[in-house]
Amino acid sequence: MSTENPTASREAQSTVTTGSVGLVAPKSHRFSEPLQLACGRILQDYTLVYETYGELNSDKSNGVLICHALSGHHHAAGRHGPDDKRPGWWDHYIGPGKPIDTDKFFVVSLNNLGGCHGSTGPVSTNPASGKPWGPDFPSLRVRDWVHSQARLADLLGIEQWAAVIGGSLGGMQAMRWSLEYPERLRHCVVIASAMKLSAQNIAFNETARQAITSDPDFCEGRYLELNKLPRRGLAVARMIGHITYLSDHGLANKFGRELRSGSFQQGADEEVEFQIQSYLRYQGDTFSNSFDPNTYILMTRALDYFDLAREYGDDPVAAFANARCRFLLIAFTSDWRFAPERSREITDALMHANVPVSYAEIESAMGHDAFLLPNERYEGIFRTYMQRVAVEQLEDRD
Amino acid sequence: MSTENPTASREAQSTVTTGSVGLVAPKSHRFSEPLQLACGRILQDYTLVYETYGELNSDKSNGVLICHALSGHHHAAGRHGPDDKRPGWWDHYIGPGKPIDTDKFFVVSLNNLGGCHGSTGPVSTNPASGKPWGPDFPSLRVRDWVHSQARLADLLGIEQWAAVIGGSLGGMQAMRWSLEYPERLRHCVVIASAMKLSAQNIAFNETARQAITSDPDFCEGRYLELNKLPRRGLAVARMIGHITYLSDHGLANKFGRELRSGSFQQGADEEVEFQIQSYLRYQGDTFSNSFDPNTYILMTRALDYFDLAREYGDDPVAAFANARCRFLLIAFTSDWRFAPERSREITDALMHANVPVSYAEIESAMGHDAFLLPNERYEGIFRTYMQRVAVEQLEDRD
Repeated sequence: MSTENPTASREAQSTVTTGSVGLVAPKSHRFSEPLQLACGRILQDYTLVYETYGELNSDKSNGVLICHALSGHHHAAGRHGPDDKRPGWWDHYIGPGKPIDTDKFFVVSLNNLGGCHGSTGPVSTNPASGKPWGPDFPSLRVRDWVHSQARLADLLGIEQWAAVIGGSLGGMQAMRWSLEYPERLRHCVVIASAMKLSAQNIAFNETARQAITSDPDFCEGRYLELNKLPRRGLAVARMIGHITYLSDHGLANKFGRELRSGSFQQGADEEVEFQIQSYLRYQGDTFSNSFDPNTYILMTRALDYFDLAREYGDDPVAAFANARCRFLLIAFTSDWRFAPERSREITDALMHANVPVSYAEIESAMGHDAFLLPNERYEGIFRTYMQRVAVEQLEDRD
Repeated sequence: MSTENPTASREAQSTVTTGSVGLVAPKSHRFSEPLQLACGRILQDYTLVYETYGELNSDKSNGVLICHALSGHHHAAGRHGPDDKRPGWWDHYIGPGKPIDTDKFFVVSLNNLGGCHGSTGPVSTNPASGKPWGPDFPSLRVRDWVHSQARLADLLGIEQWAAVIGGSLGGMQAMRWSLEYPERLRHCVVIASAMKLSAQNIAFNETARQAITSDPDFCEGRYLELNKLPRRGLAVARMIGHITYLSDHGLANKFGRELRSGSFQQGADEEVEFQIQSYLRYQGDTFSNSFDPNTYILMTRALDYFDLAREYGDDPVAAFANARCRFLLIAFTSDWRFAPERSREITDALMHANVPVSYAEIESAMGHDAFLLPNERYEGIFRTYMQRVAVEQLEDRD
């Protein structure tokens, strides 16, 4: 993975020599029961695209739900075809013998509502107008995703997940699950997440949105109807996100001040370009060709709006008093957007609410992106925890 | 100042009850001797705009040069008119009885070459074309500024500065002075600076430049000729800079998650806006009406390119072996773009080069911007050091 993933570094060490889930094909389901959204609007029907890995056992007790982050999607593991250059975004952690062991679990990974990878979202057709939803797509909150995921669980016959797992924005969904459907999950794994964003995090998201909306090709969000695309704005937005998901040390290790072209020779009148510059531009361009700007705005807003304890009198202990599952919290030392301090706050609130919780702080130079990357200690802790989840489930059956 | 400066916080406490330099008027001088630039090109003539505060003494030994940072200019202290709402950008630290005491020193503050506040730069007319220089203005390095500042010293009859002082990019100029003109300064005050930028810093600057150059109104830098202005791109660039010059805690203290409009009430279908969002937009808009985009690109490139020890075999000890002045280094605990670690590196190199240096790490929640803001300990240390500079100068005369 380290040769394919541009953010992997020397730190990346893996002891995993186990297999892949192999070739996978996305599934799709149209839900025709109207969904009441937190904003007050109602989605009459919607489609969710998802993938599953492993087999659902006879009593349907081994389901694991994967909740994706900002720019994620349903394709978490395996490959769609033999020529696929890259596996799913969490392939390192999902598969036979891997921490989320598909020999033991039935893993479900979906593209969230509002996404741009097949589930109903801003790029879908608004039945009322026959045109793309665009900016008219309803504003979503994390809880809306959780409710739509619960419908997917119903569809699959899963009354209770063995675990709901997510990193970053995915961790927010996992926590919301524990409060909205306390009886429907036995474990909640929250990685590199927070109970709410800080002003600095909101500020970065706002700047990214401004980059998109101030691109003249944004056309107030109606770019698809007008056959335009605010590519430049989305590229800048992605660059902002990308820098902040990495750490200072991680970037220093990978790029330092290496030049890509030009020279600092006195008198050499050529433009100097650092490696980090062309890398960032590449990241921005690639992303802007594969992601929908309105979706990026919708997802970052959901991140900003999330506030776990808002309706519990701003008291996270009161909020978590409703939880019935066990928790694993993981944070990474160099993650400055979802710092370990944020995970410790969650852990403290859970402890005060008498909810069983394990917390691991993982040494890493890879910043927020560490949750996606190989890391021996992270893998070890994650694997050990999930093995216990699998064993408990067997014991329950005995 | 704290009511006028939006970044000042509760932390801001000042014991300074001393006066202002009062009304000041910028001066301007056209230098007609060609200036050889590091890039190899030659500027045939150029104008520098500057202000002076205090009186030059008879032996011209009390001159202090202020070097400005990225978006700074010559107007560092006092007011241009009785109705001026704000004083110069460093008014808190320059004036009678203030750390840079204008009762003792003759303070010189200029707009750097390439600037957009009156000195020759991209908005000036290119004599070769009769049109604005725009993107054809030569690429500048920190040393070019130092050389042009030396010409200004010649003009004013100042053979040796009592001190050269700068924060951030200004600190880079001060350090370069100590190597290029070791006999022409007795003290070098380097605040919140670094010997070179990290990959993360370059990445933020690159993203800001991308925001500007990808604005269709940028027109490859020829916007002035075409009567356009890439305002939106510059606003996004400023937003990126602004967030990173503040600290996470500083933003949290000032804005937290306070709402400006909208509501999180379930079912309330209104757009939610946080205070931090409108604040950032305001900062971006204000800046984009007062700063030149090509200048912003030029200044951020000079920041990226600066590497104090590059031509000394990448050995800062070898570089500083040439310095003949004393140093004061100051850094702020919450500054994550020019972290205390960077100032400690400078201090260590100076010590190993047997150059006298004092280093102070100031507790502050205000991030990089702390160097501009009131802070009692910062003021105290700065004042004490500068008083010693003034006394030494008197002793020298005896």
